[in-house]
Amino acid sequence: MKAAIIGVTGYGGIELVRLLNNHPHVEIQSIHSSSQEGTRLNENYPHLVNHMPLQLEAIDSAKIAEQADVVFTATPSGISSQIVPELVEKGLKVIDLSGDFRLQEPLAYENWYKKPAPSKQNLEKAVYGLSEWNKDAIKAATLLANPGCYPTATLLGLAPLVTNGLIEENSIIIDAKSGISGAGKNPSAVTHYAETNENLKIYKVNQHQHIPEIEQMLYRWNNNIQSVTFSTHLIPMTRGIMTTIYGNAKTNDMTTNRLVDLYKTCYKDSPFVRVREQGQFPSTREVYGSNYCDIGVAYDERTGRITVVSVIDNLVKGAAGQAIQNLNIMMGYEENTGLQLTPIFP
Amino acid sequence: MKAAIIGVTGYGGIELVRLLNNHPHVEIQSIHSSSQEGTRLNENYPHLVNHMPLQLEAIDSAKIAEQADVVFTATPSGISSQIVPELVEKGLKVIDLSGDFRLQEPLAYENWYKKPAPSKQNLEKAVYGLSEWNKDAIKAATLLANPGCYPTATLLGLAPLVTNGLIEENSIIIDAKSGISGAGKNPSAVTHYAETNENLKIYKVNQHQHIPEIEQMLYRWNNNIQSVTFSTHLIPMTRGIMTTIYGNAKTNDMTTNRLVDLYKTCYKDSPFVRVREQGQFPSTREVYGSNYCDIGVAYDERTGRITVVSVIDNLVKGAAGQAIQNLNIMMGYEENTGLQLTPIFP
Amino acid sequence: MKAAIIGVTGYGGIELVRLLNNHPHVEIQSIHSSSQEGTRLNENYPHLVNHMPLQLEAIDSAKIAEQADVVFTATPSGISSQIVPELVEKGLKVIDLSGDFRLQEPLAYENWYKKPAPSKQNLEKAVYGLSEWNKDAIKAATLLANPGCYPTATLLGLAPLVTNGLIEENSIIIDAKSGISGAGKNPSAVTHYAETNENLKIYKVNQHQHIPEIEQMLYRWNNNIQSVTFSTHLIPMTRGIMTTIYGNAKTNDMTTNRLVDLYKTCYKDSPFVRVREQGQFPSTREVYGSNYCDIGVAYDERTGRITVVSVIDNLVKGAAGQAIQNLNIMMGYEENTGLQLTPIFP
Amino acid sequence: MKAAIIGVTGYGGIELVRLLNNHPHVEIQSIHSSSQEGTRLNENYPHLVNHMPLQLEAIDSAKIAEQADVVFTATPSGISSQIVPELVEKGLKVIDLSGDFRLQEPLAYENWYKKPAPSKQNLEKAVYGLSEWNKDAIKAATLLANPGCYPTATLLGLAPLVTNGLIEENSIIIDAKSGISGAGKNPSAVTHYAETNENLKIYKVNQHQHIPEIEQMLYRWNNNIQSVTFSTHLIPMTRGIMTTIYGNAKTNDMTTNRLVDLYKTCYKDSPFVRVREQGQFPSTREVYGSNYCDIGVAYDERTGRITVVSVIDNLVKGAAGQAIQNLNIMMGYEENTGLQLTPIFP
Repeated sequence: MKAAIIGVTGYGGIELVRLLNNHPHVEIQSIHSSSQEGTRLNENYPHLVNHMPLQLEAIDSAKIAEQADVVFTATPSGISSQIVPELVEKGLKVIDLSGDFRLQEPLAYENWYKKPAPSKQNLEKAVYGLSEWNKDAIKAATLLANPGCYPTATLLGLAPLVTNGLIEENSIIIDAKSGISGAGKNPSAVTHYAETNENLKIYKVNQHQHIPEIEQMLYRWNNNIQSVTFSTHLIPMTRGIMTTIYGNAKTNDMTTNRLVDLYKTCYKDSPFVRVREQGQFPSTREVYGSNYCDIGVAYDERTGRITVVSVIDNLVKGAAGQAIQNLNIMMGYEENTGLQLTPIFP
Repeated sequence: MKAAIIGVTGYGGIELVRLLNNHPHVEIQSIHSSSQEGTRLNENYPHLVNHMPLQLEAIDSAKIAEQADVVFTATPSGISSQIVPELVEKGLKVIDLSGDFRLQEPLAYENWYKKPAPSKQNLEKAVYGLSEWNKDAIKAATLLANPGCYPTATLLGLAPLVTNGLIEENSIIIDAKSGISGAGKNPSAVTHYAETNENLKIYKVNQHQHIPEIEQMLYRWNNNIQSVTFSTHLIPMTRGIMTTIYGNAKTNDMTTNRLVDLYKTCYKDSPFVRVREQGQFPSTREVYGSNYCDIGVAYDERTGRITVVSVIDNLVKGAAGQAIQNLNIMMGYEENTGLQLTPIFP
Repeated sequence: MKAAIIGVTGYGGIELVRLLNNHPHVEIQSIHSSSQEGTRLNENYPHLVNHMPLQLEAIDSAKIAEQADVVFTATPSGISSQIVPELVEKGLKVIDLSGDFRLQEPLAYENWYKKPAPSKQNLEKAVYGLSEWNKDAIKAATLLANPGCYPTATLLGLAPLVTNGLIEENSIIIDAKSGISGAGKNPSAVTHYAETNENLKIYKVNQHQHIPEIEQMLYRWNNNIQSVTFSTHLIPMTRGIMTTIYGNAKTNDMTTNRLVDLYKTCYKDSPFVRVREQGQFPSTREVYGSNYCDIGVAYDERTGRITVVSVIDNLVKGAAGQAIQNLNIMMGYEENTGLQLTPIFP
Repeated sequence: MKAAIIGVTGYGGIELVRLLNNHPHVEIQSIHSSSQEGTRLNENYPHLVNHMPLQLEAIDSAKIAEQADVVFTATPSGISSQIVPELVEKGLKVIDLSGDFRLQEPLAYENWYKKPAPSKQNLEKAVYGLSEWNKDAIKAATLLANPGCYPTATLLGLAPLVTNGLIEENSIIIDAKSGISGAGKNPSAVTHYAETNENLKIYKVNQHQHIPEIEQMLYRWNNNIQSVTFSTHLIPMTRGIMTTIYGNAKTNDMTTNRLVDLYKTCYKDSPFVRVREQGQFPSTREVYGSNYCDIGVAYDERTGRITVVSVIDNLVKGAAGQAIQNLNIMMGYEENTGLQLTPIFP
């Protein structure tokens, strides 16, 4: 099938190129950007010489609809909301990597994103693409809202506990850490090497726009869930997210062993979730460049608290990889088609 | 006054040399190590040429007692317990940077450190040197147990809440992050550059030996305090610790403003604690190479939870710097003598 | 075909696993190590879960010869020399990633490696596997000596100049820079994170064992070539090599344009060498995780000197990737079979 | 004495604040910037809380002349040329950290900087402040042109060879490597963390504006010196410069021993130059945060070539530190007043 990528010059778009190059059933038909029309992508990205000969084109939805079967929109929040509806209307399957179609409530979007939301009608078309937990809806989706990087790691980590009612609903705290590529391609003070290297920062305390995305899904799973505490830290590395998740076990007879079994059972048919054995926890490098989410769990008898550690590559399972995984599900391909990448180590 | 440093070849010892070089009232009289006797320290540490001409000497407590007024023991846990008592007996003031004399209960030490504890009698001589909160006892101390790096950041962050009874006693979660120098000078898999760079690891989940040290002090402040959850992460940077601390506010009428005021009041006479304004949080680089502990706080109305962010340089306020601050207190010098270092930025 | 990997637990071996997993004609039949027999590789390398289920086996050449068609020896120097001859004798094709079979002169080996050399007879069987410049010999090889990481980047950068006699034979200076993974998997002072991070070191000045390897090949191309100056620096990053190469142009009428044309012509049939346009130079990230060698060139009229910049991923084109490229050549596969990996960026 | 700092918000300016805070004879009287007038510096640089209470002021040379004795201009190239002459005219001592007054020939400046040069008359007032080699002129200077970071490391490394005529005048190649802080405070693609981390780049090949600065001084020392080759690389670290310098020895009877002796003799009265013993070479971390230039040398009998390795902290000896060293010389203070900082390790 033929794919168009809109917003290809950002890190999500570039990663889509790398991964789709590896996909046996998809050909990149055209690439689009709001600027630099007419230049070849590999002029600015020489790593793509031999891998991507196409020129950047303007965003013309009629022309895209003629040529492509699916569109990946890797545009910033606030841009997708403007271009996606027309693409959907023209009959294209759209997989949107921005945050614009993830929240079902326009007001929630406007509160957290501080931008106008897409119409309620368009939001209702969107299917939330947490691949492992929403497969039936994804199969039927035309407009797919690809999850955020932090929500992916967080929700895959919390799902077995929340869907099974094993933690107190008002006790969830997520301490999230991300590599700097999560801040995107535009240079800014926050991504300036000299100040970011050998430094550890916390940002958007209690105000990150991924909070409502996480809560929305938790609430669908268990409508007793209360607001969560969610903190985000910038780690001096390029790729990788780790979420360290805390919650109070509902029962005193919990054990780490029982948790490991639960997680292994939950994810036994999920090719991209790997659960560590008791006493083992994943590090971000162990999923580098791959579509895995690796998870470790522990129960602490002293405190009655559960700790879940969940890691992903923010640009793969947290963006382009999960987008392709969702395409596979939508098209009825094997879920891991084109995504069987061994993590790069070291 | 004259100081001896035992265990000078580790990172804590080396940092003592840098900082004592800057102290107007202290001269380094002798340096000691369990190996390499007779070699000059600056042969292995060429950055010390011009700053430290001394040769390493064996550890001879009689000779040290003759020549020095104070001894810093920057030895590993399990070693200090063997050499400190004799130094104290000989009339020396001892500031111990290891963990051996921090826990008052020998059993707690043995449980968490998996090594034999010092005798109860020797433990009782030791004063816990959290400079800002134990000043009267420190003034009178002969044997000072210098706090661990994580406990320093954690306790300075929690003290205003716990001493004032503002958080629920069973709700404390500490998500701690440290640069790799905290793992010390000995090469190991965990500190191997190729695997640690561009990586984020969690380690010793629920099992870190700093847990009882933190709980012991919290309990002294407020004996309703329950066991805390404490997680430690290795950040790909050399220096710096951040603890992100979570707890439930006891009252609904808490505000971030009130928290900032409380912290500013608590630390108004503490030259090394800097409290950020509302909405501002410290990053580790802002204290790099200095003795500061910088703190930011927030209250989240949605969850009723307080977040405290506390950062230090693990080798300064988390080790050698606080040791000298404690010496200043013990000797009646100004608390910041020799420690007025501007952080290095960037 | 079926492959065995000896020395699979080192970084070269692990990278062979990642790359061979992607090769359509090769199956990893067995993996071997001098220790840890019986454990599964993915216990120590959890990133390999789902990708490598095999257990480590002892090195039994008879058994290997029965089961495998080709053996990759990713063993340290001094070990390969002991195990390779027997494997060759048993009729296996062997691709050796160590330095043991690269130097044709036993004395040269012993001078630079300070270890006993393989026998002259065994050395004569070995074909030097610089894929782009030794293809005919490689096709016929049974024992292939895979080039070192530094020599690969250096020789691909120098070949067009030296084979065409364009630089003064006594003027070659190579300033080489490598990421830390080049130092291998064993922890040591030189790879200790706390001292290697935010640091830049030079090492083995005028004494690196890759010097004779470089000179041997240069001399084959042009027997007027004199000794080269070669310096190696440790860069605080995990992967990547850059060699910055200097030499005096023989003629005054050289231009950068002419150099770019020359290099493009030389490498027009080499799928893994990408020559940058005039004024463009490669950075190491542009080949990260891939088998490329990217090259930029410049002529400076002020000095009459040529600068060549050549970058590779030291674990791919500098080790496992070139080994597989050589296998492809030996077997008559397309040279880039299984190696068409898009570099990971960022 | 009283100092004003113009351009205080850049990295050079911020480092001046750190270092002058440590100087017993200098008080920072006022700080100036072309923007943000009226804000306190420590609002943007919270690491300076407790260390710098001043507000930013506009640049009013009359007012500065009334209040200050010396002005440090840490402004970008092209700005200093416009504001320095007026400050000098008003009788202030000026130490300029930009490149504007380093080249004596306006045409050279315009060729390499691509900006209008200061007038010949103003250029003639400027004394080049390579502290160790121009002391008499510095003592008498009113307008001091503080050397660039690369030229400082390079010239201190080359001086003993060039002033003594020990290397062939047309053989000098300087392979320079710098941490990213050298690119300054403004975010750009070249300093963007996600692309700079785990990456090694070469830039401005044969075109760096420090080339004529290096050549001008070499030529003063020895007017047979020919154009040099000079390459600059960006190393993924914040601070530090290493220059690896190559040149052909004029005589065959050179030895490394003789070189070490020569360098030790040359720098025996220079408190900030430390020469390593034979076989030892400095790394950048060994001078981190200090005003040292550490140097190692080697002669290679195989090639007849000399290698010099010279490291500095680019923001200290390469900028603010040497500026203060020059102030000390101008004022007749001990050369190392306020600069006796032990390097931070690790």
